[in-house]
Formats: sequence, C-alpha cells, structure tokens
Amino acid sequence: MKQLQYPRVAVIGIGLIGGSFALAGKRAGVLGHVTGVARSRATRDAALATGAADAVTDDPVAACRDADLVYLATPVGAIAEVMASIAASLPAGCTVTDAGSTKTRIVTAAGELLPGHVTFIGGHPMAGSEQSGIRAARADLFQESLYFLIPAPDTEPPVLDKLSRTIEAIGAVPITCDADKHDYMVAATSHLPHLTSAALAAAVAAAIGDDSQASLFAGKGYADTTRLAAGPTEVWRDILVANHDNILRCLDRLIGQLQRYRQALCDVDAQALADLLDEARRAREELTGR
Amino acid sequence: MKQLQYPRVAVIGIGLIGGSFALAGKRAGVLGHVTGVARSRATRDAALATGAADAVTDDPVAACRDADLVYLATPVGAIAEVMASIAASLPAGCTVTDAGSTKTRIVTAAGELLPGHVTFIGGHPMAGSEQSGIRAARADLFQESLYFLIPAPDTEPPVLDKLSRTIEAIGAVPITCDADKHDYMVAATSHLPHLTSAALAAAVAAAIGDDSQASLFAGKGYADTTRLAAGPTEVWRDILVANHDNILRCLDRLIGQLQRYRQALCDVDAQALADLLDEARRAREELTGR
Repeated sequence: MKQLQYPRVAVIGIGLIGGSFALAGKRAGVLGHVTGVARSRATRDAALATGAADAVTDDPVAACRDADLVYLATPVGAIAEVMASIAASLPAGCTVTDAGSTKTRIVTAAGELLPGHVTFIGGHPMAGSEQSGIRAARADLFQESLYFLIPAPDTEPPVLDKLSRTIEAIGAVPITCDADKHDYMVAATSHLPHLTSAALAAAVAAAIGDDSQASLFAGKGYADTTRLAAGPTEVWRDILVANHDNILRCLDRLIGQLQRYRQALCDVDAQALADLLDEARRAREELTGR
Repeated sequence: MKQLQYPRVAVIGIGLIGGSFALAGKRAGVLGHVTGVARSRATRDAALATGAADAVTDDPVAACRDADLVYLATPVGAIAEVMASIAASLPAGCTVTDAGSTKTRIVTAAGELLPGHVTFIGGHPMAGSEQSGIRAARADLFQESLYFLIPAPDTEPPVLDKLSRTIEAIGAVPITCDADKHDYMVAATSHLPHLTSAALAAAVAAAIGDDSQASLFAGKGYADTTRLAAGPTEVWRDILVANHDNILRCLDRLIGQLQRYRQALCDVDAQALADLLDEARRAREELTGR
C-alpha cells in the first residue's frame, strides 16, 4: 500500500497536467486533500466534478497557506509571477515544485523569490497530450513516462526522496538532472521538433494555397509530422521564449541540414540525397534505440 | 460478389505495395493468377509462401507475356527501365499501371516507351508503412486509403473504369488527377514532410552529441516528428530525385518559415512567436479538417 506523502496539496493552475497529477496522486494514496487553483470558474467547477480537487479557489495565497506540497502547473511564463505572489504565505517545511518544460529560469527565480524555510525542486513531466485543460486530465497520464526533477545544490536528500516517491506513485519514472543540461536537451529533443512541426504545417499550407483537393493529399505522414502544431499556443509561446537561446542553437543546425538537402536537390545528386537519408535513419535509430 | 477483372496479372517488384495489391486483389476476387517478379530469391519464396503470388520469376519479360494487368511496384527510379525492358513483349489490350509516388516523369516515360496497343494509367496508392518488403505485405494495406490514378488524355473510359473498380475492390478510394498537379501536391504534403522529418532527426542527433542520457529526453513528440525518417532510403532517394523541382519550391517555403521563427527567437518576441504558432495550428486544422 502506498503511504500518504503530502496531506495537504495546492495545485496552482489545475489543467491537464495539474489535474492529472492530483487525480493520479489521490488514486495512489500519496496525496491527501487537494485545493485546486484556477482563475476560471468553469475550470474550478470541472476540477471538483472530476474529483481532481477537494476544494477550489481563485486565490493562490489562500490555497498555499497550510500546504505540504505546492504544485505549480501554470504556463511557464506565469510561474515566476505566481511564486512571487505566494512566497510570503508559504508555511515552513513546505515543498514547492512545478511542471514547466524549461527549468533554468524557474530554478533561478525560485532561488530569488522563495523563502529559505521551503524547498523548491523543479519538475518536468515528459507527458502530455494535444488536448489541454482539466477536462482532458486523467489519472494515468504519467504512466511509464519520465519525470525530470531538478533539485537545488542544497536540497536535503529526504525532501527530494519524498517527492521522488510521489512521482513513482503516480506511475512515472523520476530522473534527476541539472537545469542547464535539461534545458538544452529538451530544446533539441522537444522544442525544436515542436517548432519544426509548426513551421512545416504553415509552409505546406502556403505551398498548396486554396486547392479544394488539398486535404485529399494530406495523409498520415503529414498528420504525424504536424501533430505537435496542434498544441496550445500560450504554453508553447512561453516555452520558446524561456528557452530561446538553446532552441536557436538547435534551430541553426536544422536550417543547416535543410540547406544540405536544398543543395542536393538543386544538383539532383542522388548519392548525396541517399547519404542524407541514411544519416537520418541511423541518427533516429541511435536515439530511439531501434 | 466481386467480378474477376484481370485473369492474369504480373506484379513487378513484389514488395510491400505490390504484394499487398496482389493479396488484396486476390482476396476480393478481382485478380486471377498473379506472377510475382523479384530479383531476390528470398523475396520470390516469400511471395509464394504468403500467397501473394501463384508463380514467381526473376524475368519481367516472361511474366508480362500473357498479362491482362502489369503492376509496376519497383522504386520510382527503376520504373522507366522496367517499362523499356518489357515494352516489346506486352500483349495487345494489356493495362500497365505503377505505384510510384511521383507521376510526371513516369507518365511521360510510358508515353515514349510503351507500345500503342497497351494502356498506361499512372497510379499512386496513399498507403504504406515504415516496414518494407513482401513480409510486411497485407491484404488490408489499402483499406480506406486514397489511390490516385493518372490517365493519359487518350485513355479509353472503360479501361480506366476497370482499373478504378479494381482499386475500389482492394478497399481504396480511386481519385483521378493530372500528373503535374499530383506531383506538386505530394511534394508539399508528403515529400516535404519526409525530408523535414529526416533533416530534423539528423539535426537533433548533431545537437545532442553523444550524451548518454539523450534517449531519455526523446519522447513521443520526437518519435512522431521523425517517424518518416525511418523509411527506406532507396525509395525516398528516387522520389526526391524524381520530384526535385517541386520539392525545392516547397522546401524554400519551409526555410523561409524557419527564418521567421529564428528572427522571433533572436528578438525574444513573444507576440511574434504566438502569431506563428497560431498560424500553424489554423493551417493544420484547415488541411486536416479538424
């Protein structure tokens, strides 16, 4: 049987991720009473109706006052602002974590904004969906997915262990990592693919214009490669802004690679094209392990 | 009950597509005796073992001599060569079709190479798999997929109708289209996504170097956007060569779009990034109809 780890939890921004964390943690018995925080009345109602929250409020400060765990699940761009607003009311011994997809800025902000009597551990669940919002939340969202945890240099091991056990209890695999490495790696493996997917969707649309038969031609390949472009703008805008320097480095590699294809197409160089395609397959096999 | 359309069929290049066409057509009762042509002994044995072919040979000329339908399913770059080799032995009234992903060059080559007493109708099944080869062939591969047919201006309607009925019988939806439009549209919706997927896979690999934790970071977004890069090099090399001019036009649009992201990242311009992401989502919704 799982042991209750956090009797009182505040989930600030109780949407897809925050709601799924609450549902999974309550089902596993590691989270006790959950207060869900959302600005929108409809979200608060849904958080209660789905069972993700036991109580709801639009006031982050009130929600945090007696929390053992504060889970920040707003878009990345709003996390520092929320930390500033709750800082003064956080009880001693409280653990604060977040679910933002970039970590360097958030960990730095936490160090500057949060009081010394709480522990901040950055988090990044590698789970999601094109759907967003509390209605898409589900207790199995994190099942078998990785969950990065970014402790500060002075984080006490028992505090990190407790959060790690909670992450395991919701079905995910906790991995500790430092913030800079995390952000560069996700720029390459997640943010660049997202940006590429979006740029491709727009480029294809521009190329085909308003041909009435166009949708007939858009098959599974198109749908898969542009799937990420369906993601929520606010979330991804914040990620691109927060991690812009790492993403730029990776984007320049992609543009360079596309210029190699461009040259090979201009030259109608079959061997160069075959070499590029072989290189890509090998690269993918190495990274995915198959 | 389906009616037998082609009593004697030659499938030249009996791999994933050719084998699936044979399996589906035989199951539906529209194809009679199928002779499978492959250079490799292992492929010929597998074509017999799977039931895709009733007879096999490595000689395209022998296979075509009494065929009512010749189905060319080799990689795009080999199709014209095969047409040249079989031209003199094709019986009068025979229909020749192909399954190549580009059509302008093939339709032109057919007009130049094939005798006047046969009919060539270009074909392009919008079905496939990352797997290739006869062992991946299955009778339901074309189920509910589109199948482009490219008749010549002088193709007799009953000859086209007969092939269309056969395509319907294997579960696909036949769509007639002219070759130039077809090739431009697939450049935008299929070949550009493929090239992008491959370029992305290589760029990500270059960006992360040989970090031992790299594969932990490569999640579903990476896997989906780079899935196409797993496709067979020979097939895609030929497609990129055959359709290089259309693909270049589309590729330049993609590079232009990526340059817009690059600028917005350099400027850390949240509004410009949000506009780009919104534009991408709308473009995708319009093309996929959701």
